[in-house]
Amino acid sequence: MRLYNVHTLEETEALIKSHFNSFETEVVILDELLNRVLAEDVYASIQVPSFRRSTVDGYAVHASDTNGASDTMPMLLSDMGSIEMGQAAEQNLKGNDTLYVPTGGMVPEEADAMVMIEYTERFSEDTIGIMKQALPLQHIVGVGSDIKIGDKILSKGQRLKARHIGALAASGIFEVCVYKKITATIISTGDELITTDQTLNVGEVFDINTHTLKHQADVLDIEVIKTHVLKDKRDLIKETIEEGIKTSNITLVSGGSSVGDKDYTADLIDELGEEAGVLIHGLAIKPGKPTIVGKVDDKLVLGLPGHPVSALIVFDQLIRMYLSHMHSYHYHTVTGCLTQNVHAAAGKETFVMVSIQDDEITPVLGKSGMITMMSRADGYIRIEANQEGLDKGESVTVYLLD
Amino acid sequence: MRLYNVHTLEETEALIKSHFNSFETEVVILDELLNRVLAEDVYASIQVPSFRRSTVDGYAVHASDTNGASDTMPMLLSDMGSIEMGQAAEQNLKGNDTLYVPTGGMVPEEADAMVMIEYTERFSEDTIGIMKQALPLQHIVGVGSDIKIGDKILSKGQRLKARHIGALAASGIFEVCVYKKITATIISTGDELITTDQTLNVGEVFDINTHTLKHQADVLDIEVIKTHVLKDKRDLIKETIEEGIKTSNITLVSGGSSVGDKDYTADLIDELGEEAGVLIHGLAIKPGKPTIVGKVDDKLVLGLPGHPVSALIVFDQLIRMYLSHMHSYHYHTVTGCLTQNVHAAAGKETFVMVSIQDDEITPVLGKSGMITMMSRADGYIRIEANQEGLDKGESVTVYLLD
Repeated sequence: MRLYNVHTLEETEALIKSHFNSFETEVVILDELLNRVLAEDVYASIQVPSFRRSTVDGYAVHASDTNGASDTMPMLLSDMGSIEMGQAAEQNLKGNDTLYVPTGGMVPEEADAMVMIEYTERFSEDTIGIMKQALPLQHIVGVGSDIKIGDKILSKGQRLKARHIGALAASGIFEVCVYKKITATIISTGDELITTDQTLNVGEVFDINTHTLKHQADVLDIEVIKTHVLKDKRDLIKETIEEGIKTSNITLVSGGSSVGDKDYTADLIDELGEEAGVLIHGLAIKPGKPTIVGKVDDKLVLGLPGHPVSALIVFDQLIRMYLSHMHSYHYHTVTGCLTQNVHAAAGKETFVMVSIQDDEITPVLGKSGMITMMSRADGYIRIEANQEGLDKGESVTVYLLD
Repeated sequence: MRLYNVHTLEETEALIKSHFNSFETEVVILDELLNRVLAEDVYASIQVPSFRRSTVDGYAVHASDTNGASDTMPMLLSDMGSIEMGQAAEQNLKGNDTLYVPTGGMVPEEADAMVMIEYTERFSEDTIGIMKQALPLQHIVGVGSDIKIGDKILSKGQRLKARHIGALAASGIFEVCVYKKITATIISTGDELITTDQTLNVGEVFDINTHTLKHQADVLDIEVIKTHVLKDKRDLIKETIEEGIKTSNITLVSGGSSVGDKDYTADLIDELGEEAGVLIHGLAIKPGKPTIVGKVDDKLVLGLPGHPVSALIVFDQLIRMYLSHMHSYHYHTVTGCLTQNVHAAAGKETFVMVSIQDDEITPVLGKSGMITMMSRADGYIRIEANQEGLDKGESVTVYLLD
């Protein structure tokens, strides 16, 4: 019979980070960058804007030509026509000349100010009256004033969102180097498990873990290659783990991670791994003690508790640790006050599922209320090992499961 | 020349909700339910668990047979074998009989308690000693104790996450009725716009809006059918809007939403719509005044400001309004304290892009720093119309753009 080799979460994080810290990269185009993680710093190769742009609809002028202009004393300038959007301003603007430029249009080189159309009036076919003195550079955005060649736009480790992809587009960058998507195989084991397309007989239960882990993987940007629901047959589980290791970065096995007769996962990881095999067997957390962290051919193999709520929490915590070496992204958390006291297991970190209503955090409890815990929780809180519990009204931080 | 017909955000929300409130539904299988919104309440059709389950590895007993049992005075029971996981317990357990049941296994009908294996000892091939008195029902989860037939598992309007899909699987439900995905066509207009695969000439800029809006749509679970970058040609824009209306629930047109000569969007919406056409032209917010809300053939057509930051904020706000009628999902927000004073436009609601560092909220400013605003912001804050600004240290709520 195997014995547990229990580690704290802190020790587990250090171990995972030291064993899994090199990630493959690939070049990906803008359209497919959402949620991908940059593998390099990105620098601007153009100036933005690349030409002097007007921020108003109005007339480009030499500011000095407008000195003293007012409603009652307009300065009359020669109308040289207009600039079209998207066109270079090639007109040569001499003294006392002016030119219409729309918002975002190019200001001709010789002009040093824009006058808003509200402060102008057409006096004749060739003459525009300026009714307000212009300050040099007013309403003009200079070349490179938003970004200069060589400026760092985004940093290695950033998880790309819509706004970041917009910034890349603005800089004329249409592909960048990102980390390859992490892939996973999910295996749920147990002689009692059936899939939702099968008929439930007495003694059987529908498998839950392939469903929750698959979709939670999706939330964490992990691509699930395949899911399996397997009976507790040693050879079958071994074969499937081997296939998982070949096709995925992470292989997850829920159930069979304890130390009983039919708990094969730890032995199989030791058999398959040429070097390390099982790194950790047992976590000092509640729920989640029967957890295995293993390494086979440089791939991560996790043995997760069979209980769906425990499996989900342990998966979320360990995968965040695994990914944290790749990206600098901080998962958003929500803070609020507890609506009731929460007890914790002495000497272990305790995780408790909670629901969030406005700023109020309510534990979702129930000895056997697995479905209730799954359907009502928005996330979970973590209580440190040295705390006996938390009091009603205390402020807590929630790890969101969204 | 058109005139603005300005509305507050509150008025806009009421209008959008009154005009767009019927959504199509479809039946979808578990595997494809992530982030879909339930169109019906879901009730359990089985009991969970469907049989009495043991919560420990141990022996099933008649509790009364263990009265007085202790380490020094074990009660000796007849070993009737064991239950396998996934099997019905069909053994007939008479007085003084016992049976091994693993965690999660079925407890035979006649037994009314489980004794943990730690408190038992094998005395002979046929005899198990029980070293601790059992309380009736201990370590047994009753039929339906998690969920009963007819219990409501999930509610109409819920956005389904991994844990909800797990709860459905546990209940043996493999498909549910959800709202069809909302679809969108995104059109970015402007004579100065080019796409990232083109070469930048003087006076031109790379289009940003198709990129940010497409990916932000994805974040809001909207399926983008097609994106277009168009020159300011009335007929071309009209044709493309018509195509958008035919193929999508929402057609977005950025640029051309102001009241100038080349601002065609409002006119085109009025031309295309048989009834309402333009519902709103102008929002009392900053940035975002040049916004159009229109209705053509029961489809939503939005005219968005051309400025990328304004377009992104207005899009996010209006689409949340549109979707809020369909689902009860509350977007998670983050609360923190401002690191500096923020000024606001008097008489209008003001939106300010911000970055989040721990609990500190810092406005991302810069007159022309569009890329900076895009690349550094994590979300935006909203300042009410009657506030002149916010003070350093004040607590604010951030709409996340993730």
